[in-house]
Amino acid sequence: MQRILISELNNFSDKEIRINGWVHRIRNMGRIGFLLIRDRSSIVQCVVTTKDIEIKGLKLESVVEITGKVMENKTCKCGIEIHVSTLKVVSKVNEDLPIEINKEKIDVNLDILLNNRVLSVRSPKVHAIFKIQAALAQGCTQFLIEEDFTQIFTPKIVAEGTEGGTNLFTINYFDKQAYLAQSPQFYKQMMVGAGYERVFEIGHVYRAESHDTKRHLNEYVSLDLEMGFIENEYEIMKLETRMLKYMMKHLSKVCGASLELLNANIPIIPEEIPKLRLSQAIELLKMEYGKDMMEEDLDPEGEVLISKYVKENYNSDFVFLTHYPQSKRPMYTMPSENKKTHSFDLLFRGTEITTGGQRIHEYEQLKDNMIKHGFNPQDFESYLSVFKYGMPPHGGLAIGLERITAMLLELDNIREATLFPRDRSRLIP
Amino acid sequence: MQRILISELNNFSDKEIRINGWVHRIRNMGRIGFLLIRDRSSIVQCVVTTKDIEIKGLKLESVVEITGKVMENKTCKCGIEIHVSTLKVVSKVNEDLPIEINKEKIDVNLDILLNNRVLSVRSPKVHAIFKIQAALAQGCTQFLIEEDFTQIFTPKIVAEGTEGGTNLFTINYFDKQAYLAQSPQFYKQMMVGAGYERVFEIGHVYRAESHDTKRHLNEYVSLDLEMGFIENEYEIMKLETRMLKYMMKHLSKVCGASLELLNANIPIIPEEIPKLRLSQAIELLKMEYGKDMMEEDLDPEGEVLISKYVKENYNSDFVFLTHYPQSKRPMYTMPSENKKTHSFDLLFRGTEITTGGQRIHEYEQLKDNMIKHGFNPQDFESYLSVFKYGMPPHGGLAIGLERITAMLLELDNIREATLFPRDRSRLIP
Repeated sequence: MQRILISELNNFSDKEIRINGWVHRIRNMGRIGFLLIRDRSSIVQCVVTTKDIEIKGLKLESVVEITGKVMENKTCKCGIEIHVSTLKVVSKVNEDLPIEINKEKIDVNLDILLNNRVLSVRSPKVHAIFKIQAALAQGCTQFLIEEDFTQIFTPKIVAEGTEGGTNLFTINYFDKQAYLAQSPQFYKQMMVGAGYERVFEIGHVYRAESHDTKRHLNEYVSLDLEMGFIENEYEIMKLETRMLKYMMKHLSKVCGASLELLNANIPIIPEEIPKLRLSQAIELLKMEYGKDMMEEDLDPEGEVLISKYVKENYNSDFVFLTHYPQSKRPMYTMPSENKKTHSFDLLFRGTEITTGGQRIHEYEQLKDNMIKHGFNPQDFESYLSVFKYGMPPHGGLAIGLERITAMLLELDNIREATLFPRDRSRLIP
Repeated sequence: MQRILISELNNFSDKEIRINGWVHRIRNMGRIGFLLIRDRSSIVQCVVTTKDIEIKGLKLESVVEITGKVMENKTCKCGIEIHVSTLKVVSKVNEDLPIEINKEKIDVNLDILLNNRVLSVRSPKVHAIFKIQAALAQGCTQFLIEEDFTQIFTPKIVAEGTEGGTNLFTINYFDKQAYLAQSPQFYKQMMVGAGYERVFEIGHVYRAESHDTKRHLNEYVSLDLEMGFIENEYEIMKLETRMLKYMMKHLSKVCGASLELLNANIPIIPEEIPKLRLSQAIELLKMEYGKDMMEEDLDPEGEVLISKYVKENYNSDFVFLTHYPQSKRPMYTMPSENKKTHSFDLLFRGTEITTGGQRIHEYEQLKDNMIKHGFNPQDFESYLSVFKYGMPPHGGLAIGLERITAMLLELDNIREATLFPRDRSRLIP
C-alpha cells in the first residue's frame, strides 16, 4: 500500500490507507487509545482499539507506519481521523524526550531549545519558521531569475577582506593564512563587470564580531545582488521594493498554513516605500522622541523609533534611509555631494535588513577612495585592477535571510530564525 | 531613450534605439569604422561614420552607450546592424588588455585565464559556461521543490568533521578551534529527522586535500539532498535519474544559445541508468581492458574505462556503481550482506559526480559502526544523540556542481567550470 501524506487524507474518506510519521501525542484511555501522528505535511488523530494493538510501551516521537480507515470526525480539526488496523514501529524510541515538543509552545529557554534543535524543530510552530525561510529564499531566487539575473557561486575562502581586515575569521589554508568572506561584495561587482551585468548569490557570510546580541550572528545567509548600467541608487531601491512584494506574494501562495499557524502578519508594501534622509531621521528622533544621536548614524533603539514613526505616519513596515555619510560607508560606496554617499539602508519593523547603494566604477576614483579610507590599494589589487578594463555604473544590495525571517515573524531573537546558529559560545550542534 | 538589449534588436528594425555594452572588437577602415558591441545578451555590429564620431582613441572593453538606427544586414550573423548616431564612453579604458578575449577561443594557458578571470569570462564561450552552471543549479532547485523538498541552510563552521577529522581546514573561531564543513551530511540527516523528511542544500563544502588534480577543488558547490521513509538506496537512484532528466530539460529550455555556442552534447538519460556492482566493474576492467585494480575501488582511469564500456554497450553517458564495500564508505552508510553497503556512485562521462546511498537510522547500529570504523562515538555526540528520538529510514546524495558542469561541457579541467577556483596554490582572485 502506498504511503499517503496526512494533508491529503481528506481525499480518502472511508478508504484504507497507509501513513508514516512520528508519534506526536499519546492518550491511553484503557480500551481505546488516541495517537496524534505527525508527518511533514500535518497531524492527524488515530484511534486504536488497545485489545488488538499494544500501545502501552510506545514512546513519544517513535517513527511508525500505520494502516487504517479514514473516517469523518467533525470534532477533529481536519474533519477526519484514522481508525487504525495495524501499527508498526519503524524506529523505536526508548527514552523520554529531554524537552516537551507537543504543546502549543515549547516552554524552555532559547539555549535549551537550540541545544535540542532537532527535537525543537519538530514542534509545528518551529517547523513553520523554516518552511517560511525556504519560501523567502525561493521567492527571491525566482524574482531575480525572471529579472534576468544570473546566479553565481563565489569563494568564501579569500585572501583579502572587503572591509579591510576587521572582523575576519582566519583559516589555516595549507601553508598560508586566509579568511572567511564577510560578503561576496567584491566578487559580485567583478561579475557585473565580467559581462553578466546582473548577478545574485545566496550563500553564507562570516563576521567575527565578538558582541553577542539578539540581532547578530557570526555566520548568516546573505541574499546578495548586484546590477550594472544603473543611473543611481534609486533604481536599486525600486528593484528591492518589487522584490519584496514578489517574495511576500510567493510566501502567501506556498506557505499559507505555516503563516496561519504562526499568526504571521504579512507586511503591506506600498507602491513606494517611504524614504528619509539619515539626517532627517536623526532630526525626527530628537524632535519626536527627545533622542540625541551622538554620531551620524542610528543605533538599534533609533531604528526602532524611526520605524515606529513611519508606521504611525505612513502606515508602512518598511522605510529607506538615504544619504549616509562617507565616513560610515565602505570605501567602494559612490560618494555624493556634502560628504554623503549614494547608499541606503532598509529598515523593516525596527531593524535594518538591507544595506545597499551605488558603487564606484572608475579605477582612479576607487583607488583614491581606498586611500581616503586609510587603506593601501595594493592590498586590494586583484579587485582594483578589474576597474581598469571597463566597469559599468553599478550598484546592489544584500538582505540578511535570518533577519528578514525574524522580522517578518516578529521573533524576539535572530537565533530563532537560524537552524544552527553560530555565535561566541555556540558551535554545536 | 530606454536601453534595448542586443538580443531584442530584431524587434526594432528601422527604429532609433539605445544600447549599452562593452567594445568587443574595433575595425577602423578610415572613413568608416565597425565596432562589435557586447552586452549580457549578445553581440551586434555597429557602423560608425568616422568624420562624425571619433573612434581613434577608443580601447577594447570600454563601456559605451550607443544610439542609432537598426538596419537589416543579411551578411551579419544576427541579420541586423546598427548605424550609429551617437557614441558615449561611459567607462573609459586606458590600457591594452592583458589577454585577448575577442577571438573564437582564448589562446592562453589555464593559469593566465584564471588570473584574468574577470576578462576571460567576458569571452562569449566562457560566459556561456556559467550561464549553464546557473541553469543546472536552478533546474535542480526547481525539481526538488516540486518534489516537496525543503531548502535548508546549515552551518559551514563546525566543531566535528563528517569523516572523522581528516582533510579539514581549521578556523580560529574566537578562542576555539573549529573546522570548515566537508559536507552538510550530518545536518541534512538531522533535518530529515527533525520532521522535514525531504531537504536539500546548495552550498559550499571544503576539502583540505593537498593533491592538485584536474578534477579536485578545495572549495566546491555541493547539490545535497536527503529524504526519509525510503525502502532502500534504489529509491535515491530513481530520484536522481528523474532529477538529471529534469535538469537537462530545463537547461535546453533556458540555455539554448549557450549550449549551441559551446557545441554542447546534452546527454540522453535512459529511463533506467545502467547499474553495475562495483565487483562486476572491477571484473570488467580486467576482462575487457586487462586492468588490475589493487583494491576494491576504481581509480580515475578505471572510471573512464567503465564509462567507455557502458557507453559502447548500453549507449548511456551515465552508470551507477553499487555494492561498495563497508571499508570504502563512511561510518553512517547502511551496511548490507557480505560486508557491502547500500550505497552507490554515479559516473558521468568517465568521472564520479555523485556519491549516495541509504544511511543507518538506528542509534545502536550507528554507534557500533562508528566504533567499527575506529571512531569514538563521544566525538559525534550532537549528531549521534539525534538517533535516539525517532529517525526514519533515509538516504541521500550529493552532486558536485562544478563536476557536472565540466563533464556536461566536456571541459578538460574542473577549474574551467569554477568562477574563482581554490586550490593548493590559488587564493586570488
